[in-house]
Amino acid sequence: MIVQKFGGTSVADIEKIKRVAQRVTQTYEQGNDVVVVISALGDTTDRLIKLAKEICDRPPEREMDMLLSTGEQMSVALLSMAIHSLGYQAISFTGAQVGIVTDSTHTKAKIIDIKVARILEELSKGRIVIVAGFQGVSLDDHITTLGRGGSDTTAVALAASLGAEVCEIYTDVEGVFTADPRLVPEARKIDRITYDEMLEMAATGAKVMQLRSVEFGRNYGVVIHVRSNFSDNEGTWITDSEERMEKAIIRGVTHDVTEAKITLMGVPDRPGIAAYLFRCLADANINVDMIIQNVGENNQADISFTISRDDLDKVKSIMEKVVEELGARGFDCDEEIAKISLIGAGMKTHPGVAADMFSALAEHNINIEMISTSSIKISCVIKASEVQKAVQAVHRKFGLDKGVVMHG
Amino acid sequence: MIVQKFGGTSVADIEKIKRVAQRVTQTYEQGNDVVVVISALGDTTDRLIKLAKEICDRPPEREMDMLLSTGEQMSVALLSMAIHSLGYQAISFTGAQVGIVTDSTHTKAKIIDIKVARILEELSKGRIVIVAGFQGVSLDDHITTLGRGGSDTTAVALAASLGAEVCEIYTDVEGVFTADPRLVPEARKIDRITYDEMLEMAATGAKVMQLRSVEFGRNYGVVIHVRSNFSDNEGTWITDSEERMEKAIIRGVTHDVTEAKITLMGVPDRPGIAAYLFRCLADANINVDMIIQNVGENNQADISFTISRDDLDKVKSIMEKVVEELGARGFDCDEEIAKISLIGAGMKTHPGVAADMFSALAEHNINIEMISTSSIKISCVIKASEVQKAVQAVHRKFGLDKGVVMHG
Repeated sequence: MIVQKFGGTSVADIEKIKRVAQRVTQTYEQGNDVVVVISALGDTTDRLIKLAKEICDRPPEREMDMLLSTGEQMSVALLSMAIHSLGYQAISFTGAQVGIVTDSTHTKAKIIDIKVARILEELSKGRIVIVAGFQGVSLDDHITTLGRGGSDTTAVALAASLGAEVCEIYTDVEGVFTADPRLVPEARKIDRITYDEMLEMAATGAKVMQLRSVEFGRNYGVVIHVRSNFSDNEGTWITDSEERMEKAIIRGVTHDVTEAKITLMGVPDRPGIAAYLFRCLADANINVDMIIQNVGENNQADISFTISRDDLDKVKSIMEKVVEELGARGFDCDEEIAKISLIGAGMKTHPGVAADMFSALAEHNINIEMISTSSIKISCVIKASEVQKAVQAVHRKFGLDKGVVMHG
Repeated sequence: MIVQKFGGTSVADIEKIKRVAQRVTQTYEQGNDVVVVISALGDTTDRLIKLAKEICDRPPEREMDMLLSTGEQMSVALLSMAIHSLGYQAISFTGAQVGIVTDSTHTKAKIIDIKVARILEELSKGRIVIVAGFQGVSLDDHITTLGRGGSDTTAVALAASLGAEVCEIYTDVEGVFTADPRLVPEARKIDRITYDEMLEMAATGAKVMQLRSVEFGRNYGVVIHVRSNFSDNEGTWITDSEERMEKAIIRGVTHDVTEAKITLMGVPDRPGIAAYLFRCLADANINVDMIIQNVGENNQADISFTISRDDLDKVKSIMEKVVEELGARGFDCDEEIAKISLIGAGMKTHPGVAADMFSALAEHNINIEMISTSSIKISCVIKASEVQKAVQAVHRKFGLDKGVVMHG
């Protein structure tokens, strides 16, 4: 059994939908049970969001889910028709119909359970099953969506629940690259990568796969194959850790220009301040990425953190409340930032990696505003205008254009 | 409690959606529980059908329903947002979510049951409930649609199940008219009309309400008020028979240019022929309107009947089979027909009405191809090109421009 996921650009017009139908039926002809997950056609989701904003400044999230979930429902029906016209049996389902049960966090719901009985029944009739990505249904029967890129999560979760051999993620590119080829022309495709490394790549801006779907894949051991819509070439396999001799491997450089930096200034440096601030943000379902805190003069602290720019309006109104509650001096927003990250296993035990990265940036006069590290990544926040220069500098510094890099 | 239904043209753009939101909240402010039923935005349904046809010559009907039902889901979410932005609580539902259970006849499903508990619960919280028209869910959990104009049926069925005081059908015109004002400038609005008369008006081409919804209204005694989107004027009330002294009242003239005439030629005149033909059509869910049969020379008969032009492709392939099975001479299709009908209670007991109608046509040299009568209507099939002339002639013959007409 194979689960195949196609994104919005793969089904952007009728010719592309027909091409997806051909690929799906080829896989079926090779003797596989096939479950297909697709996203909304092209820019449908963006168009719907724009429409909602024209009607209501802050549309209720429950109604946003009601609206946005129509995009995938449309595309599954059209793909099913395209497969029918090739002479194969197919049946399309919404997330609710195949029992993709989620919590009630509208616009960012998490999958709780998938009831696969209906899918298995249709597969046993020889049908190709097409499932709307990105959406589910809460326990009290409201339509939910899983957030941006949620179709990847749907696909990997279905592959886990169905015990599929592989979850194929089709994309516009040949696989996962050592850096964004638009910024670094000499970037190379990665053949194999571990879940943990891919997690850091996704978390730090590699757009080819969504973070949560990789987490899901790791937790349930789903073999993921990221590959191209336009060729039969092997792409990038994401699996458990592979055997290797090297001590530290640098996988790639990622970047992210979708975040904003918030600085809360002049808060009293006493326990519970940070806890209060991040509890307020968590209660509003805001994902915070990097956090740093400096204690300055007069025993007053500044706390800086980064969030998705999409959440900026929400965060601003929370910050106004927080400033008042804490008696802080004020807060500041900076949207002109970029995050650049270096990913690879075993970095933390090799301090030279971080030092090399910082000096690559320094050699190009790029100022570092924030730093955050994990066992397999180092991220730096810099000015948005310097992102291309920075990615190129780091990519070259570690010789990523020359093949797998061993360090230390 | 009031059920309000708005059609696709009432929600064609954002300004119009906002206007609907205003009318709905006004009704709520007057102390009513309000349930709103809406159709897909503007020409959404037509666009989706076009898209489907580009992908597949004959899209499976199950998948068509999956596709088309997204149109109403979009509009209910958007209307809910518009109501929220006016400061009121609203919640939108798909047909499936509020338990509009139908049979499995995809694209033309019939409502079996409505589970109103969820709607009542939301109303009890002070919310305005918005329900997607035109759609439901089959007992085995497939999405179904009710066919063209199905939103009227949803509204009237909901009003019946909820015991609403009135079901308001909002439209582009002021109500039901004695004839189409585009054809007959002197046509007048009808203030009150009985279910039976409205049924015949709808069945014979008055587009303001869908036939099935009027049937539903009659069977469950739902008071229907057809009125204008653009004013607060009273429209046309559809209720049980009203008291009246007159023997026969002529209500109006309707016309229909959406049908085609099929003639099956040279079939042996023996029992069972018509039964076989119409059984084949019924099995394919084809609605047949008028039927006439002539026995000609050699004991051979011609059978003519009219169908919706939308079904023409299906009917042609059935007729090919029927001609072969019965050894008939062949069949003929005529798409250039129109049906003109005169509606009014108690006609059959007043033969002079039919005679007057036929002579109105004859005076204008209009040939009658088929005739069909019921207790409250007389219909004639004529050439499509003569429809305007015919409607004007009959409207004038019965003095419909001058007020309620008593005859006989």
